[in-house]
Amino acid sequence: MIKVGIVGGTGYTGVELLRLLAQHPQAEVTVITSRSEAGLRVDEMYPNLRGHYPELAFSVPDVATLGACDVVFFATPHGVAHALAGELLAAGTRVIDLSADFRLQDADEWAKWYGQPHGAPELLKEAVYGLPEVNREAIKNARLIAVPGCYPTATQLGLIPLLEAGLAETGSLIADCKSGVSGAGRGASVGSLFCEAGESMKAYSVKGHRHLPEIRQGLRQAAGRDIGLTFVPHLTPMIRGIHATLYARVADTSVDLQALFEKRYAGEPFVDVMPAGSHPETRSVRGGNVCRIAVHRPQGGDLVVVLSVIDNLVKGASGQAVQNMNILFGLDERLGLSHAALLP
Amino acid sequence: MIKVGIVGGTGYTGVELLRLLAQHPQAEVTVITSRSEAGLRVDEMYPNLRGHYPELAFSVPDVATLGACDVVFFATPHGVAHALAGELLAAGTRVIDLSADFRLQDADEWAKWYGQPHGAPELLKEAVYGLPEVNREAIKNARLIAVPGCYPTATQLGLIPLLEAGLAETGSLIADCKSGVSGAGRGASVGSLFCEAGESMKAYSVKGHRHLPEIRQGLRQAAGRDIGLTFVPHLTPMIRGIHATLYARVADTSVDLQALFEKRYAGEPFVDVMPAGSHPETRSVRGGNVCRIAVHRPQGGDLVVVLSVIDNLVKGASGQAVQNMNILFGLDERLGLSHAALLP
Amino acid sequence: MIKVGIVGGTGYTGVELLRLLAQHPQAEVTVITSRSEAGLRVDEMYPNLRGHYPELAFSVPDVATLGACDVVFFATPHGVAHALAGELLAAGTRVIDLSADFRLQDADEWAKWYGQPHGAPELLKEAVYGLPEVNREAIKNARLIAVPGCYPTATQLGLIPLLEAGLAETGSLIADCKSGVSGAGRGASVGSLFCEAGESMKAYSVKGHRHLPEIRQGLRQAAGRDIGLTFVPHLTPMIRGIHATLYARVADTSVDLQALFEKRYAGEPFVDVMPAGSHPETRSVRGGNVCRIAVHRPQGGDLVVVLSVIDNLVKGASGQAVQNMNILFGLDERLGLSHAALLP
Amino acid sequence: MIKVGIVGGTGYTGVELLRLLAQHPQAEVTVITSRSEAGLRVDEMYPNLRGHYPELAFSVPDVATLGACDVVFFATPHGVAHALAGELLAAGTRVIDLSADFRLQDADEWAKWYGQPHGAPELLKEAVYGLPEVNREAIKNARLIAVPGCYPTATQLGLIPLLEAGLAETGSLIADCKSGVSGAGRGASVGSLFCEAGESMKAYSVKGHRHLPEIRQGLRQAAGRDIGLTFVPHLTPMIRGIHATLYARVADTSVDLQALFEKRYAGEPFVDVMPAGSHPETRSVRGGNVCRIAVHRPQGGDLVVVLSVIDNLVKGASGQAVQNMNILFGLDERLGLSHAALLP
Repeated sequence: MIKVGIVGGTGYTGVELLRLLAQHPQAEVTVITSRSEAGLRVDEMYPNLRGHYPELAFSVPDVATLGACDVVFFATPHGVAHALAGELLAAGTRVIDLSADFRLQDADEWAKWYGQPHGAPELLKEAVYGLPEVNREAIKNARLIAVPGCYPTATQLGLIPLLEAGLAETGSLIADCKSGVSGAGRGASVGSLFCEAGESMKAYSVKGHRHLPEIRQGLRQAAGRDIGLTFVPHLTPMIRGIHATLYARVADTSVDLQALFEKRYAGEPFVDVMPAGSHPETRSVRGGNVCRIAVHRPQGGDLVVVLSVIDNLVKGASGQAVQNMNILFGLDERLGLSHAALLP
Repeated sequence: MIKVGIVGGTGYTGVELLRLLAQHPQAEVTVITSRSEAGLRVDEMYPNLRGHYPELAFSVPDVATLGACDVVFFATPHGVAHALAGELLAAGTRVIDLSADFRLQDADEWAKWYGQPHGAPELLKEAVYGLPEVNREAIKNARLIAVPGCYPTATQLGLIPLLEAGLAETGSLIADCKSGVSGAGRGASVGSLFCEAGESMKAYSVKGHRHLPEIRQGLRQAAGRDIGLTFVPHLTPMIRGIHATLYARVADTSVDLQALFEKRYAGEPFVDVMPAGSHPETRSVRGGNVCRIAVHRPQGGDLVVVLSVIDNLVKGASGQAVQNMNILFGLDERLGLSHAALLP
Repeated sequence: MIKVGIVGGTGYTGVELLRLLAQHPQAEVTVITSRSEAGLRVDEMYPNLRGHYPELAFSVPDVATLGACDVVFFATPHGVAHALAGELLAAGTRVIDLSADFRLQDADEWAKWYGQPHGAPELLKEAVYGLPEVNREAIKNARLIAVPGCYPTATQLGLIPLLEAGLAETGSLIADCKSGVSGAGRGASVGSLFCEAGESMKAYSVKGHRHLPEIRQGLRQAAGRDIGLTFVPHLTPMIRGIHATLYARVADTSVDLQALFEKRYAGEPFVDVMPAGSHPETRSVRGGNVCRIAVHRPQGGDLVVVLSVIDNLVKGASGQAVQNMNILFGLDERLGLSHAALLP
Repeated sequence: MIKVGIVGGTGYTGVELLRLLAQHPQAEVTVITSRSEAGLRVDEMYPNLRGHYPELAFSVPDVATLGACDVVFFATPHGVAHALAGELLAAGTRVIDLSADFRLQDADEWAKWYGQPHGAPELLKEAVYGLPEVNREAIKNARLIAVPGCYPTATQLGLIPLLEAGLAETGSLIADCKSGVSGAGRGASVGSLFCEAGESMKAYSVKGHRHLPEIRQGLRQAAGRDIGLTFVPHLTPMIRGIHATLYARVADTSVDLQALFEKRYAGEPFVDVMPAGSHPETRSVRGGNVCRIAVHRPQGGDLVVVLSVIDNLVKGASGQAVQNMNILFGLDERLGLSHAALLP
């Protein structure tokens, strides 16, 4: 039984970790921390968990207790994992960080986008970017895993096959992404109110969103060269889900893209290349750890349109974190993640 | 491994059965029928099931094939099970009917509310009303089970403790119930359109809803006498969920209602009596097979307000059907149903 | 042209006042205050107003400026109007308060429900409860008007005909009310987040909601005697709208209720008694200043079910405030309020 | 007073015409037709109109009655106006067609996209494309107006300034558009059900949508040359609204795009160029006849991102139709259309 600790478990990725781990046969949550809610039982905050964690309560973060875990998940705002990860690693605990703290390899770029110095640059070299479809081998031996962001997961999985094959024009990629409101977290902000985000659609951060450098880094690696990417995120009136609509121009229109994508993801347990002509819906992955992808070339032109959907809280966060844990501990990658999505 | 057949699997209770049975370790769906969609793979209609039923396709209903199953679920409009259930029982197959066909013990009352003669009155005597919290023993030995309706499940579980204890005035019960739109099914009707049911609330069928006689029958049995019930259903702009707000006048205000409810449901795996003062949310049971209940007596008066929530597609339909199957086949009642609800 | 001031215009009732007054031919908003947003143009906060108030910006509240208005609306949290109303009245300005500050006639009861002493008890005697269908004559000559709350408006309009006619059993009234989330205001609270309030239904404040004493006061007046009322509010996943489902037992079942209601509201511009058998939808009043009512007596019993719907921000707040202003200034009561509701 | 007829008034554009014309001081709806609902009062179908059209009922379409109107709106599926428009024009009645029947100048292209021969090719020459911001002068003297589609309105208004100025690379335009569900109409189709379209996002018709040739035609005219456009529509879980996210590469990055857009739409009553850096929300135009636009050039690159939002039922259909009527009859273009949008 893997002993699991969770730091910062009061947000949506925290409760989602608890939901997924409740059905995981090889993991047990032994500690969950929250400064603000210390003492509160987790099922008092999240009644969907009643009966699943009858004894578990939030506690004040404490390195000794966390260090007794086999693995600690950080479901925290950026900056928190910087401060704690090193100590836990020193204690022999593995760290899976759902925040942005270790996603960018370049500490300066991190500082630029997050508006503060990187708090643990010495750990960057060993941090593994936890996108199993790209880094599975490295994950197996990692001590510190940076779980990809939600937009980056949907976007990279959609574009990587084109880039790895050298098919896409790398200078003019576009990612028009639509996210459910849970991507904004559980913080009490006016913009996330039901009456502000409901029955409306808007773009945001067109000038530059923090996930842009992360996506660029991943695509650059896939392409083996610099890439130019325009990323426009949109807030969509739904709770869960990301729909990435990806545009890439290809030089060679004779390639069988459907075959290319199917081959790239053959054997991947959590990437589903849908039949040609499909339009994946975000609800088809609600609550599930799957990325569903369809690839189109409208009117036979040279612009490829890739549709890629995930549940931002699962494959875009907590589910992918558990997938990483499974790989890290040599378990079947699908443990605790094999349930079907909730539809309708 | 229990061989399962499903008749009429294209609606929401059908896909929900498939979702739940996909994670059931002791059941295997071997046949699913639909006249209109015969030949279509189930995951072409419901992409959330991709990877879970790679071979399963809808077929034309056929008694021989269905009769080879250990149990057949009917997820059909009323009237269909009347025609087929007898033949399947004769073939030694057990029948779990999610429709209204065998819920009312009185064929004439059925005919009155459903506007057509009862098609199999000879089976009524052996049909067991599948509310495990009331009829668990009878279910164990049943051949034919009538799964309760969604409103009746939420309402009965909320009122039964008061009635069994002889506490409630039986002549003036009120059930003000709010249902998500999935309760109206997947049929293409104008009233269920996103633009008709969204961003709006309305009552319907105030004059008389088909679940009224079913609820009355169950409450009468609990009370041991006739009861008077006003039942007002409302359409609520959400996909899943029923919130029953139940009003009952009590003669004796000295009884500890919290203790009464907790005692009544002690040991029940799928009824959760919440702490005193709670307000259960429907989302706390989304996708889960749980009924959460809270009991209030506002301002210390003699009117008791019981709040009872379920997911209409799970504890109100397909989940309860699987729970019945588990009991029927001597399995752990929680098999395939122990996952936490999806929140947010 | 009536010079209008608005205190506290950053919330939903504030923007709704601006929307309604923008199309009012006899009123002009000359000042709108907000301490926190002083200096901000109103259309920077509310882009739907772009082009309608090109010059209007929030300013710091100031009695001299406000006192130069013919009428000042308070769209503030409770307590604010207590402090300012007296000074404005002294300056000859009329006050229409959308908050709860002057709704209860009894300062002690106010203090009990709002957890602080009443700040201007000396004004209570002249405050007029601004429900035009009851108090139209008093409103005409008022200096200080307390606009009814949203739940109280829907509930009183639905029950008053029964109570005035002496038909209803006054001891056992029930108001099961469902409100859209905008009723909770624009404050950043976790409970009003899209991901908390969406796709879910719950009751709240079953123990006792602040609108309870207000409703009781109004119903007592209509009945001419004390009344017993159980009031259960529910949070519904929609932005606007209140659906009140009202239950009253009648002694005499021979009365033609449809005729009673039609007669009571004959000539009322903003109460619509729908045809017998109707089920009013909240969307039929979205954005409009109408209360639509249907009256039922299910199964011919002695329990009357009244369905009453309003837009909580219009007839339940800002629209009713403008209606009061029209009456107060001797204008056609419908000015600025005659547009049709927005459907779908 | 302009006598107005409406053909096919039971859909969403029909009820929206009635809502807008109810507040129009110079127009009166004298006839509204529907074969299926003949005899039904309009406010029985649409209770939001109660009190506004106390006498108006649907009637069977009849050329004599319609021909007595000054103007007839067609709010019908494609093909219907083909059959009737000629007769009405011959009777001296002007025709404003909200359907697609006269939008494409080329009958063969129409036939190709709509799968049937064009029914009135002889009228195409005089049909005026009713986008006032482009064709105002022609509209003034038109007899037959083709009201633009919803996607085409949002997309053209967003791209025209760039194309007219010769700034955009014309071969690689992208329109990633998100529509509310009301764009799919009021027909009872499974895909538009609350439980199918709610809480989910998907692209559709990526292969080719019927609005593509219409948009291409308009953009070609603005650019003065052929254009290449990829158009990807998405279904969004909201009732009203279109959000067009438009991508165009510019050769010259030194041009002040904000000034360009502001100049292009100076004086336009219904196009609002928002301040630099804005992110227009669809709710800011809900129920209003406005198109709000913001123009961005992320990271100072050569890809321009234009955000353009409308209410698909107003500026994208019925409001624009009324705007055309106002122009056609020499009225103030804003009559009946000057109300603020409904927010929240």
